[in-house]
Amino acid sequence: MRFAFGSALWLYAASVKQKKRKTMSDTGVTVKKSEDFSEWYTEVVLKSGMAEYAPIKGCMIFREQSYAIWERIQEVFNRKIKETGHRNVYFPMFIPESFLKKEAEHFEGFVPEVAWVTQGGSTPLEEKLAIRPTSETIIYATFAKWIRSWRDLPIKINQWCNIVRWETKATKPFLRTREFLWQEGHTAHVTSEEAEKEVMDILGEYKDVMENYLAIPVLVGVKTENEKFAGALYTTTLEAMMPDGKALQMGTSHNLGQNFAKVFDINFIGEDEKEHRVWQTSWGISTRLIGALIMVHGDDRGLVVPPKVAPVQAVIVPITYKDADSIAILAKVKEIMEKLKAHCIATVLDDRPEYTPGWKFNEWELKGVPVRIEIGPRDLKQEQVTLARRDTYKKTTAKMTDAAQAVEKLLEEIQNNLYAKAKTALDEKTTTVQNYDAFKEILKSKGGFIKAAWCGRSECEEKIKEETGATIRLRPFEKEEPTANCVYCGEKAVEMVYFARSY
Amino acid sequence: MRFAFGSALWLYAASVKQKKRKTMSDTGVTVKKSEDFSEWYTEVVLKSGMAEYAPIKGCMIFREQSYAIWERIQEVFNRKIKETGHRNVYFPMFIPESFLKKEAEHFEGFVPEVAWVTQGGSTPLEEKLAIRPTSETIIYATFAKWIRSWRDLPIKINQWCNIVRWETKATKPFLRTREFLWQEGHTAHVTSEEAEKEVMDILGEYKDVMENYLAIPVLVGVKTENEKFAGALYTTTLEAMMPDGKALQMGTSHNLGQNFAKVFDINFIGEDEKEHRVWQTSWGISTRLIGALIMVHGDDRGLVVPPKVAPVQAVIVPITYKDADSIAILAKVKEIMEKLKAHCIATVLDDRPEYTPGWKFNEWELKGVPVRIEIGPRDLKQEQVTLARRDTYKKTTAKMTDAAQAVEKLLEEIQNNLYAKAKTALDEKTTTVQNYDAFKEILKSKGGFIKAAWCGRSECEEKIKEETGATIRLRPFEKEEPTANCVYCGEKAVEMVYFARSY
Repeated sequence: MRFAFGSALWLYAASVKQKKRKTMSDTGVTVKKSEDFSEWYTEVVLKSGMAEYAPIKGCMIFREQSYAIWERIQEVFNRKIKETGHRNVYFPMFIPESFLKKEAEHFEGFVPEVAWVTQGGSTPLEEKLAIRPTSETIIYATFAKWIRSWRDLPIKINQWCNIVRWETKATKPFLRTREFLWQEGHTAHVTSEEAEKEVMDILGEYKDVMENYLAIPVLVGVKTENEKFAGALYTTTLEAMMPDGKALQMGTSHNLGQNFAKVFDINFIGEDEKEHRVWQTSWGISTRLIGALIMVHGDDRGLVVPPKVAPVQAVIVPITYKDADSIAILAKVKEIMEKLKAHCIATVLDDRPEYTPGWKFNEWELKGVPVRIEIGPRDLKQEQVTLARRDTYKKTTAKMTDAAQAVEKLLEEIQNNLYAKAKTALDEKTTTVQNYDAFKEILKSKGGFIKAAWCGRSECEEKIKEETGATIRLRPFEKEEPTANCVYCGEKAVEMVYFARSY
Repeated sequence: MRFAFGSALWLYAASVKQKKRKTMSDTGVTVKKSEDFSEWYTEVVLKSGMAEYAPIKGCMIFREQSYAIWERIQEVFNRKIKETGHRNVYFPMFIPESFLKKEAEHFEGFVPEVAWVTQGGSTPLEEKLAIRPTSETIIYATFAKWIRSWRDLPIKINQWCNIVRWETKATKPFLRTREFLWQEGHTAHVTSEEAEKEVMDILGEYKDVMENYLAIPVLVGVKTENEKFAGALYTTTLEAMMPDGKALQMGTSHNLGQNFAKVFDINFIGEDEKEHRVWQTSWGISTRLIGALIMVHGDDRGLVVPPKVAPVQAVIVPITYKDADSIAILAKVKEIMEKLKAHCIATVLDDRPEYTPGWKFNEWELKGVPVRIEIGPRDLKQEQVTLARRDTYKKTTAKMTDAAQAVEKLLEEIQNNLYAKAKTALDEKTTTVQNYDAFKEILKSKGGFIKAAWCGRSECEEKIKEETGATIRLRPFEKEEPTANCVYCGEKAVEMVYFARSY
């Protein structure tokens, strides 16, 4: 068994898991995505080797497959932010209670789900310590130390770390767990305009990661006061639609205004030689993105990983029957591996003798590898390879000499097709309604995003949430004239917004 | 200000910190390394932008410079372990008390310094949770679930994560803090021999990282029973010598034997169709390595970062006096940047007009950038660049057309020189003694490693520790015939071992 890539990934998982499986019903996905979405998700997550339940309530284990996707996301996003002058750092995960309390709204928002450390060794702590539910407070206490003059600005830092929120709702791997992984960016600027630009620049980078790497289309806009980050001036958000009609918040970029600067005294002497407060932003994406990837692209055979974030992009399965052709086939396979390697395609060769080709096909489909390359006696004779797409199951052939180019092209097509399919699904799951009856009817029949007119009052939003479970996911940047009065109160509407039930 | 490299790093720090500094006594290192090592270390760590004290006792903030070095270490070690079939994962940081208790020796070893989470939100937890001081117990509870047959083995996983040990001793950035970052590898094998091989393979990879990347020579060997990892069969270790004569444990690779397998019931059906227990290893290196790098290579002007782990390998400082040459110089500088970029040399151009060249020289020396490239009017005229080495302060010139090759060569020389210097220092700080008087005399006068004969009994080791503070750092793999009787009890010695006081 060889790897074309140092970063190639899943073979180990394959060899570990597969060998104790007896039949495909043990190992394959037994539930249809369209029939029991929740159970399908659980099966895919566990059987494909993405995650394992942890022996601690509400926690999960990120197995090799999901962690490798996370590493790809890190690689892509790190490149983006480093190019724009952000620097990675690491702050302590312990936050004194007194820090968390400084910004009242922030504290109120997070305190119900904080895990507290109260004891070190056998000694009770003098002040209990929160495990970071987010790091604004500890980072900004330090910003206050670093910032003196306008020349010290902007500060643009980021950290990749674990986060703890003591969820009381039902947890689900990747989507809601008590501990998860994320990145959190924190910046401080001289002017409000600079902070606003940062918020939008990052939102744009997030959109690029989601749409062009994860192949998941998102709606972008602003959160309502009810839904914004606790302590922010406003929160911008990226929202995706899942196949069960529920929205998923994919990432948020907050304009913090001067709320934290005020309580942490982050002041600087400006060019005008007067004292000013900084303007701040914070923003984050988390391992939740992996949950979205599974839900949006997966199918009845398992995972489907978009090529641009796939740790293994192609798997070669030689079809040998221990006959005279075998040696010739395996020799060819090695040549092709070299070619794929030269094209930077992350490839695994599955030459395990103890499994049949059919078994291997199922296995790699379950794991979502975008392209399968088959080479059998007939392929050898015709100097071709057979290429099977994970997204459509379609098979084509390519000349052996062109194998790498053909795989490259196919990977691009798969990437584009996954996005296009997801975009169609998003559009199909977006409905504009004119009144509350239609609203409730759509929510009941198909869910999804419901675009409706809103008067701008929190009361209407809250009533709708109470009565239907749907919230305003976003107020879109692209404003449309309201097509009706407020969907709840019937008063004059100020804008069209997107409602949905959500994860 | 431009970056030749997306990963180039320190400019931001430069612009943030430097601008509020008024004089070099505020900003430069004011204490000589040879005169007050401890204070020198603190100044270098804080002033070069490596770390900041955290507002939580015993914790630290990894600033952009140290985190970037950590990222380089991750990159190097990840490549090594992925190539040898290890996979990165992430396990929860919470460990139920009952898990930690399963292996008695392990529990005894870690419980005095465990931080405990006792409350989630406003609710007390039913079972208090340890924040991982190391993850053997939670990972092996899961191994028991995954392993059924010899075909499931080996399992070779690794995680990069934060670790908490509630230190009661005085803390010091990078060397001893209550939270730090590390990687921990965990493997399970069919045979004891395989586990032994894994322990030694990893030790070899660690040695390569330390000697060939961090340029720090290490002694390798086995820990005594007193000093081994709590729960291990035996611990192999890599030990370096710091300039103050104290040893630093750089990394450890443990053979766990079947100790954990026994208590976590990690059994498998072998090829012989009988039930067996797995054999296990675990191993780790931490951000402590950054502390070693600072101590070993730093000098009176600040940090010296070995080129192979330097986030910025070269800085270009144009020497312009706003005269007619300036434009020509800056044009040349851009050409040279491109060339360095093409050679994958991480370069920063410092063209800040508000600072003098002399100021910049000090600044980049403080930050330890290996090569400074100066281009002034005379260099321009002679079509050359002036190259200044951080390690020796020596200046040479190179033709502009050869600049990249010259810098490349210099980086290699600096890397080699740093190692050679550190090796000489290690040798000078290693003394063989024949008796306990000489032992105590050397320990008092120069410290360092003291090679002495030992009878193999823990009692002698403990007495020496009590009386002198020195412990056996390692029993070297390369055995030498004892040159005397046991340095403490005078009975027959079984081997020569290395003693030292240590961090």
